Amino acid sequence: MRILVSNDDGINAKGILHLVKELKNIGEVTVVAPLTEQSAAGHSITMKVPLRVTEHYIDNEFFGYAVNGTPADCVKMGIKNLLKEKPDIVISGINNGSNAAINVIYSGTVSAAREAAIMDVPAIAISVTDHHPKHFEYAAKLSAKLAKLVCANKLKTGTLLNVNVPDLPEDEVKGVMLTKQGRSKWDDYYEERVDPYGSKYYWLTGQLLIQDQDDDKDQIALNNNYASITPIHFDLTDYEMFEQMKSWDIDTLKLNV
Amino acid sequence: MRILVSNDDGINAKGILHLVKELKNIGEVTVVAPLTEQSAAGHSITMKVPLRVTEHYIDNEFFGYAVNGTPADCVKMGIKNLLKEKPDIVISGINNGSNAAINVIYSGTVSAAREAAIMDVPAIAISVTDHHPKHFEYAAKLSAKLAKLVCANKLKTGTLLNVNVPDLPEDEVKGVMLTKQGRSKWDDYYEERVDPYGSKYYWLTGQLLIQDQDDDKDQIALNNNYASITPIHFDLTDYEMFEQMKSWDIDTLKLNV
Repeated sequence: MRILVSNDDGINAKGILHLVKELKNIGEVTVVAPLTEQSAAGHSITMKVPLRVTEHYIDNEFFGYAVNGTPADCVKMGIKNLLKEKPDIVISGINNGSNAAINVIYSGTVSAAREAAIMDVPAIAISVTDHHPKHFEYAAKLSAKLAKLVCANKLKTGTLLNVNVPDLPEDEVKGVMLTKQGRSKWDDYYEERVDPYGSKYYWLTGQLLIQDQDDDKDQIALNNNYASITPIHFDLTDYEMFEQMKSWDIDTLKLNV
Repeated sequence: MRILVSNDDGINAKGILHLVKELKNIGEVTVVAPLTEQSAAGHSITMKVPLRVTEHYIDNEFFGYAVNGTPADCVKMGIKNLLKEKPDIVISGINNGSNAAINVIYSGTVSAAREAAIMDVPAIAISVTDHHPKHFEYAAKLSAKLAKLVCANKLKTGTLLNVNVPDLPEDEVKGVMLTKQGRSKWDDYYEERVDPYGSKYYWLTGQLLIQDQDDDKDQIALNNNYASITPIHFDLTDYEMFEQMKSWDIDTLKLNV
């Protein structure tokens, strides 16, 4: 199995080390990851400045390619320019912090996997729920097992799997659940501060409001100490609203009649 | 009508000037826009560096607030910190360049509107199809008419409208169509170049491959010289794949039994 690995915490993050170590047991791994942390990069790509690629070594051994761009850049660059053959799967992570519910939208980790899905390559994004996780072992092992399951079962073109794992020792994770993206979102605001020169600046801060109740939502599965697997795609059309809007008087919008 | 306006081309872009001028005819407009161009910013938000807000003047007249962040930051900052009351609608644009089909995923313009939708505020993203548009007039007028239609008809919570307009004189736009997000995507790659110091660098380049055929896809409506309105939402769950995956042997993923 040819596996392309990326992340959003940067090529020096602990999570990607754990992931690569485990995946080397099941396939040929190439790492293409951001040079610097790209948390909350969303699906941004770099168009207005050139990208650079540097070889990254750990203990004098080649580890992978570092790109001065976003997670989505890394996957695009990996598949288009750096790999000789299309990978069988792209795995992005292991992220420091949950990418469940609304965090899916902001996540660079998920966007790296989504870029792969756009390029017709099966993909998995994997995250552990704490910003300073203590337990990567379960997530690493689950990635390897799930990669094999994905290759055996096939994902729909354009679909990726968003996986979140509670930050717990292996024997405390209750199991794995198939879930839907939850609606829990941030109650956040910008905290106003004053710098040493008397000028105002703002830090984003807040807390996640749990607004889900159903057991099959990603956020609730995690709260119940289950690992969560959510299939997501990149067609954002709201088909229900599309049908409703047929009764809107769209014709009144015509300007030139 | 209280209208918050943002964009991704930055507070100095022509498109936002055209939009604001038109919207002042129908409501009270507050501008909160990125200080610098943020094209392809996706739904990135700024968490690791503080944000600054500066007042922006045009011809000695207050125009709006500039934020050293992303489009999504601007909308969050506008609604949470800068506006005294929640706006009735958020309008993001007018963007230089199409945000149809796969471009929805990369778009900062769409993400600004999506941030509003996440915050339960109705929102419209509006773009003109050329990277150097000659015709903002139709898009500006359509924004104002559509804003009134949205307030009259109500959008579902969490839904926004992604609007694209052909870069044509008003009388050459054939009309307005309700559409679905197309599947057309970029055939792109990184062009390798060498800098004056002998080091390699890479520029993203390519072309959009038209992979849609149905008349009700955003990309096809634009190709046929219609303005396109697509309802989109932020629940990315692939419900079809969710059902299919029930037959996957998820239980084999259990690690601790």
